[in-house]
Amino acid sequence: MMPTAKKLIKKLIKNKLSLAVAESASGGYTSYLLTKTPGSSKVFKGGLVVYSLEAKNKLLGLPIKNLKKTQGVSKSVALALAKGIRKKLNADIGASLVGFAGPDSPKGIKPGTFFIAVSFKKTRSKKIFIQGTRDQVRKKASQLLIRLIYESFYRY
Amino acid sequence: MMPTAKKLIKKLIKNKLSLAVAESASGGYTSYLLTKTPGSSKVFKGGLVVYSLEAKNKLLGLPIKNLKKTQGVSKSVALALAKGIRKKLNADIGASLVGFAGPDSPKGIKPGTFFIAVSFKKTRSKKIFIQGTRDQVRKKASQLLIRLIYESFYRY
Repeated sequence: MMPTAKKLIKKLIKNKLSLAVAESASGGYTSYLLTKTPGSSKVFKGGLVVYSLEAKNKLLGLPIKNLKKTQGVSKSVALALAKGIRKKLNADIGASLVGFAGPDSPKGIKPGTFFIAVSFKKTRSKKIFIQGTRDQVRKKASQLLIRLIYESFYRY
Repeated sequence: MMPTAKKLIKKLIKNKLSLAVAESASGGYTSYLLTKTPGSSKVFKGGLVVYSLEAKNKLLGLPIKNLKKTQGVSKSVALALAKGIRKKLNADIGASLVGFAGPDSPKGIKPGTFFIAVSFKKTRSKKIFIQGTRDQVRKKASQLLIRLIYESFYRY
């Protein structure tokens, strides 16, 4: 799935669309993949690694009280982050990822549970569940987010 | 050099010190390395991938006029980012990385030129030059920043 980041960057350059990302559990891996391609600076404005609840609050203004309810991992948090980073960096597309990479996770929630979201023409989110080691699920989650961004050109 | 991120996280946990990172050319790879270790959320508050001048301006308030002079790659930008992210996320330690990963770079500056900085007890920066492919130099730069943070426990 690795070529997808490159394909996405090419598509963004061709369509003159800019992108910004806010991710938590993947720890910056999504932004790393997107910026592997030379010339990505033409369209990739920047990313946030909103690893703590405090970062989600201080960087994009999400209320701490709401974040605490789900430890920052929910559909609504993913949607708010995607919309928030799009607005913050004045980008055409905003994308986000939150989740529990493991090995630990809160009671009743399996590690490998993620919510990904894209804010473009519309805002869309997806709950995903990935099995594997901490590193495997983080990388896979980033790749699935990149695919969701790519698909957002066709799905709306 | 990969175990260094893990060693750093352990050291931060042991010393109850928090860390935040702002990086450009490495595209999030530093934050990714730091969050590979389970439990890193205890000490890693978050990161910024300030890939564009606009991101450096909008997320940490660096003046666009100053950034344009060096395309955002200078000792003073690295220092301002390290201090800025430390303050923004209320972290004990702030660290930053800016550079040209290549293959292209401005006239007169070799790709592989980076400035890294750490703001802890004092603020310290280092100019580094790394040879290799785009991906190799990005990864190596992140690893050298992690080492600089680690060393900052002993050097001050």
